[in-house]
Amino acid sequence: MAPADRRPARLKDVAAAAGVSKTTASRILNGDTENFGKETCARVKETASRLGWRRNLLIDGMQKGRSKTVGVMIPPHDSFWVGVLAGIHITLAEADYLPITIWIGDCREFPEFNDDDTAGVEQINRLLDRRVDGLILWPSFAVAYYDHYRELIERRVPVVSIDHRLPDEVHADSIETDELAGATCVAEHLIGLGHKQIACFGARETEWQGWSVRRRQLFEEAVASRGGSVVRSWKTNESGSDGLEVAKQVLTSSPRPTAVFAVSDHQARILYRAAADLGLRVPKDVSIVGYADLDFADELSPPLTTMRQQPIEIGRQAAQAVLERQADEASMATGRVISVRPELVVRASTSRP
Amino acid sequence: MAPADRRPARLKDVAAAAGVSKTTASRILNGDTENFGKETCARVKETASRLGWRRNLLIDGMQKGRSKTVGVMIPPHDSFWVGVLAGIHITLAEADYLPITIWIGDCREFPEFNDDDTAGVEQINRLLDRRVDGLILWPSFAVAYYDHYRELIERRVPVVSIDHRLPDEVHADSIETDELAGATCVAEHLIGLGHKQIACFGARETEWQGWSVRRRQLFEEAVASRGGSVVRSWKTNESGSDGLEVAKQVLTSSPRPTAVFAVSDHQARILYRAAADLGLRVPKDVSIVGYADLDFADELSPPLTTMRQQPIEIGRQAAQAVLERQADEASMATGRVISVRPELVVRASTSRP
Repeated sequence: MAPADRRPARLKDVAAAAGVSKTTASRILNGDTENFGKETCARVKETASRLGWRRNLLIDGMQKGRSKTVGVMIPPHDSFWVGVLAGIHITLAEADYLPITIWIGDCREFPEFNDDDTAGVEQINRLLDRRVDGLILWPSFAVAYYDHYRELIERRVPVVSIDHRLPDEVHADSIETDELAGATCVAEHLIGLGHKQIACFGARETEWQGWSVRRRQLFEEAVASRGGSVVRSWKTNESGSDGLEVAKQVLTSSPRPTAVFAVSDHQARILYRAAADLGLRVPKDVSIVGYADLDFADELSPPLTTMRQQPIEIGRQAAQAVLERQADEASMATGRVISVRPELVVRASTSRP
Repeated sequence: MAPADRRPARLKDVAAAAGVSKTTASRILNGDTENFGKETCARVKETASRLGWRRNLLIDGMQKGRSKTVGVMIPPHDSFWVGVLAGIHITLAEADYLPITIWIGDCREFPEFNDDDTAGVEQINRLLDRRVDGLILWPSFAVAYYDHYRELIERRVPVVSIDHRLPDEVHADSIETDELAGATCVAEHLIGLGHKQIACFGARETEWQGWSVRRRQLFEEAVASRGGSVVRSWKTNESGSDGLEVAKQVLTSSPRPTAVFAVSDHQARILYRAAADLGLRVPKDVSIVGYADLDFADELSPPLTTMRQQPIEIGRQAAQAVLERQADEASMATGRVISVRPELVVRASTSRP
């Protein structure tokens, strides 16, 4: 192993050792090999490698206005978001970009944001200070930063949001689950099994959980339009703290529902607990359908029937969208909505009524 | 909202608008306010704020040799690692640092690394290209990069590893769970309940799962040293693919163990499946103890008795160690091992034999 006091080579060291000018060395190491002799190119590259030279993307970033980093404001607090992050990482790496991820607090829990959250502003500024080439946001962050999009627009930083449509003037893309396809699929599954009394157990319907509102509304419409079944909906309070209580209201309402659609697997898990507390068996007394196919869905007893979202594909699309916008300023004139289709995974939590 | 063609101000714009030289503006905005009049300082800051100027840490990074970023090579593939990431993020943010996280592939699964993994080298080089001020690694990455630590040593990049001791010459810190305390605690719990025939179900014991080896060995020693009980150990193959098969061997071995210590909650989950397949009831027929208190531990049926690790604290310590080493080069002359103590969480998966 080399002695610890050997410093990595600078460009000028490489140039001197290879016997070329600093400009020549720089151009060759940056990929311009057409204007120099084959032997010279090989010598410069070999010398750089031997001396342990590495390009400095801080300098590149200043000179070219590109840092080759993307700010990713997504906490990996469940396996859906971990999958989204994986898709983002894979796609950015393929393009030689790196993610700078950021969040506040304990990401194992849903973070709490207030409109006047000054810590939030500091976070977005930290990313701007490092000249990220784009931003990928999740809904909670997206809402917390409503007051600060002026910065992003002025700096022409492309923005992509997951599961959340930003204000029009941001011209951001939103990558979403195809909620119409998902809600329709759940409704057809339950009605097909013969359920007539159906309930929907929704999450908190805050501004950053707009997907929860859409999922519930589209499910209500899908059941109503198919005839023969009725649907009633409940949802938790804004902090989500009354989940178990609301789940028990759902399961003891009259007439008692024989099937419940939970707008996320987290809600489905609460329903399992409520059912156990009430002595109701799943699916004999009540069928339950979740949404997302989170990592615990298959571990529940009985394993949960759920709509499998495609988080890696969602992450891939988000990274792709940010890279496209970054490469082509014209693409930033409008905001797109890109939908990714979920699929039903039937397990043991649903049966005939 | 401002028109989209308004460009963010540069330093020279701020200087011109405030009527000072670029040097003066730069020094004031970088915090040197003692050598200038109060009124001048206030005017420069107000002008910068009004024009939307933001410091450029790419320039700062070049000038000061600090990018205020730390490379974090940890995939959030279960809730332990998500907690570690949370601790790292919180602590780095407090110090005005940002993490650049990186990994390869689908982090919902354990990544596969080979010693000759060239994709891995590219990843570490991407971080060096961006001049990170330090690196935090998890075991799997740590092993994959054994051949490339020369770069880090030469560049004096401080390195901290979680749950894995790097080769001596790297002088890296390792933040670990206090395995002795954990193994002792599990042994005392099971022996205290009256178990005589005890088994240990280990994970793959590859180089990057050294914690698994330590956990098993210390548990064996703790049981042996307490007398009256015997312990036998099994472990999965290198890919972990034969988990269910090995778990069934554990549960059907003769004499049949009345209690099994699984070196992680993942292993405990496999034991639950094996027990269900064999018609054994937990804890009536066999008590099971896990390790980590992952997010699903409480959801298993019955809820799992497990050693709760402190991932957020581990992440905090890791970030703190990297920042300390970065601030004080003398601290990099040796590698430290910092232990974080776990605690037993007793749930319904353990009882008297």
